[in-house]
Amino acid sequence: MFGSTKQCSCKMLIQIQHKLKQLIAKQTTRACSLKFKHDLSDSLEERKYENEQYDETDSEITFRFKDLTTKLCEPEQLRTKPDVTDLKFGHYFTDHMLKIFYHSKLGGWQRPVIIPFENISLHPAAKVLHYAVELFEGLKAYRGVDDKIRVFRPDLNMGRMNKSALSSGLPTFDGHELIKCINRLVEVDQEWVPHSESSSLYIRPTLIGIDGTLGVQQSESALLYVIICPVGSYFNGNDDSVSLLADPAYTRAWPGGCGDKKLGSNYGPTIRVHNRAIQKGRQQVLWLYGPNHEITEMGTMNMFVAYRNEFGEKVLATPPLSGLILPGITRQSILQLCEQWKDVRVEQRTITMDDVIKWQKAGRLLEMFGSGTACIVTPINSIEYLGEIINIPTIEHKEPLYLKVRESLHAIQYGHIKHPWAQTID
Amino acid sequence: MFGSTKQCSCKMLIQIQHKLKQLIAKQTTRACSLKFKHDLSDSLEERKYENEQYDETDSEITFRFKDLTTKLCEPEQLRTKPDVTDLKFGHYFTDHMLKIFYHSKLGGWQRPVIIPFENISLHPAAKVLHYAVELFEGLKAYRGVDDKIRVFRPDLNMGRMNKSALSSGLPTFDGHELIKCINRLVEVDQEWVPHSESSSLYIRPTLIGIDGTLGVQQSESALLYVIICPVGSYFNGNDDSVSLLADPAYTRAWPGGCGDKKLGSNYGPTIRVHNRAIQKGRQQVLWLYGPNHEITEMGTMNMFVAYRNEFGEKVLATPPLSGLILPGITRQSILQLCEQWKDVRVEQRTITMDDVIKWQKAGRLLEMFGSGTACIVTPINSIEYLGEIINIPTIEHKEPLYLKVRESLHAIQYGHIKHPWAQTID
Repeated sequence: MFGSTKQCSCKMLIQIQHKLKQLIAKQTTRACSLKFKHDLSDSLEERKYENEQYDETDSEITFRFKDLTTKLCEPEQLRTKPDVTDLKFGHYFTDHMLKIFYHSKLGGWQRPVIIPFENISLHPAAKVLHYAVELFEGLKAYRGVDDKIRVFRPDLNMGRMNKSALSSGLPTFDGHELIKCINRLVEVDQEWVPHSESSSLYIRPTLIGIDGTLGVQQSESALLYVIICPVGSYFNGNDDSVSLLADPAYTRAWPGGCGDKKLGSNYGPTIRVHNRAIQKGRQQVLWLYGPNHEITEMGTMNMFVAYRNEFGEKVLATPPLSGLILPGITRQSILQLCEQWKDVRVEQRTITMDDVIKWQKAGRLLEMFGSGTACIVTPINSIEYLGEIINIPTIEHKEPLYLKVRESLHAIQYGHIKHPWAQTID
Repeated sequence: MFGSTKQCSCKMLIQIQHKLKQLIAKQTTRACSLKFKHDLSDSLEERKYENEQYDETDSEITFRFKDLTTKLCEPEQLRTKPDVTDLKFGHYFTDHMLKIFYHSKLGGWQRPVIIPFENISLHPAAKVLHYAVELFEGLKAYRGVDDKIRVFRPDLNMGRMNKSALSSGLPTFDGHELIKCINRLVEVDQEWVPHSESSSLYIRPTLIGIDGTLGVQQSESALLYVIICPVGSYFNGNDDSVSLLADPAYTRAWPGGCGDKKLGSNYGPTIRVHNRAIQKGRQQVLWLYGPNHEITEMGTMNMFVAYRNEFGEKVLATPPLSGLILPGITRQSILQLCEQWKDVRVEQRTITMDDVIKWQKAGRLLEMFGSGTACIVTPINSIEYLGEIINIPTIEHKEPLYLKVRESLHAIQYGHIKHPWAQTID
């Protein structure tokens, strides 16, 4: 069931997958029947390749795509694909996953493997379960108008993932090697990339510390794994504008902390605050920081505010990368797009709640929206702050900036225009 | 292999365990041999009890000890006990563990089970692996001079654990029920409680969110499990006094955060700072907060400072429970003991690095020490702060307070004196 990845073209893997699925459809007996095995024998034979020579000298530093092996699902393991209209975020996973172990005592990174999607077996003392030694990334693959699959700026995710690893006592790696492994995983499960421009394939690389010992220490063993899932919209409902609760009693991140890294520890403690927002009839949390109630993030997204300054100029502002916010890839892309367009002044600046109130009262507040990989761009319709509701006219404009941004990113991601940010996987 | 726990006396379980172990010693063939099965049949027969009636009405609120079932190890699963001189913290685990699942869709808490120690199998999207939906507790069982096993103030751990659960979107439970289940686990593995007054049995209850879906949300499924391990001293080496690095560039906790809860997310992000301390030749981190460089915690311990005030009075000070520090059970016990002794003035007050420097320069700084369940009391010998080394004369006194505290707690924990804080498990 294992084949060297370099020589084993993905097209063939997919052909086999489809053959397997067809066989299942025809089959009335269980997949383990003799007849079934016989039908498959040709395909299985095709997948026997010798592994390439393994270069052990650099395993401490990184794993290598050339060492990747692939074990495909048995026919009965293939899952039914959900309807594209029923894609709740993060609820359906594909048939395969990528796993790469790290053991410092075994020379570092081990060979990457693509295997059927399966549970992860952990020692009960594994550091990830006690001390949140864990980090993740989120990126997406899109099926373009030309049927080619594109991944959006994966190099930026890899850079951020390595920074998160450094801050967690977890091993770093060569991001280009992981991108190649991820691309192969997406190829193997390419029929899971929705044939729809309202959906995409969410890619979740995760790195966890798995040493089976108690004690808050550097990890000597780790597991990097990647799971992928077809997703629709992150938020439910037709009107995708959201209401926020801004309560200065809660802080997401602070100076000298890790709020600018994509660590699990930045998310768990937010659930209670999110629950509080829901209880108060709001949909998301607007995270404030400091005595001036600076706007930092919203839910798990970066924040943008569009307003007219005192000279009548249209400004798109977002909080600076001061260590308090995640350096979002959608955030960076929006900034770059708007700077190219030149029809709006782009500023990375501190934005306080007083600023928002001042602009709103003066009729100069235009739009507020969040940005992130999961939902791309999410408009905001109101903020509850210190007992008052501030209405935000984001969706009331004729040609709002948030829509222009969303449509431009969409055009890049789905291949309507050719752009270096969207990289085809083959 | 399952027996109702209420009627099945633990003495009998232990007798069976010992019988199994003896059998292994005698046995030359594998445990699955027919002869072996035959030898065991009497013992296994003894363990067949009918479960008591399960009261489903309150499963949403809590699990119940009366529903606990126990599946003992097969003889070949029993582990070799390490030598008491070789007890590295958190490296050796006993033969059994306690597991209690929670599934809101199945009515809430499920029946507690004691089973052979085993890996935990998790969906790769489990919330604990991505969003640090996890919390833990640490408490200890001690084998007393009368050979009775005592657990130290478990009710306080249960209270704190439920507060942590509330802050993490994880289900709460009746702490008394968990204490009874834990006591049974300790009874089953009672031969693992070291026969030594330099060692103890560390108990690690853990609660994790296990829903197999991405998205930062309240957990609908959770797993509470308890693993136990014999431990010696938390720190290696003979002189147990430690050197600290106090670097105001790093912050452990923040107002509006969760620094006063025992969540995994408070620990992972500290590893990089601990590594930095080690690189600078220091053993632990002294955590500071705010512009005045307030002392909050050290490593994973609470902090105490003993000094003479301007009136010549001896004062034991510790930072107040302001939300920035963990409400430690050893901390609370030390405060209560010292208040009873009346030979030192006890203060919960803000302590800045300037205070420490001022007292040290005036010759009024007496001792600094950390407190926690793992190491009980750890004296501090020096602090590196803003490029200077501050020497702390903690271990230079004839009758230091830290030793009096340590010995008093020891006397309670090992049953030298009768005290309500140390509760026998039978």
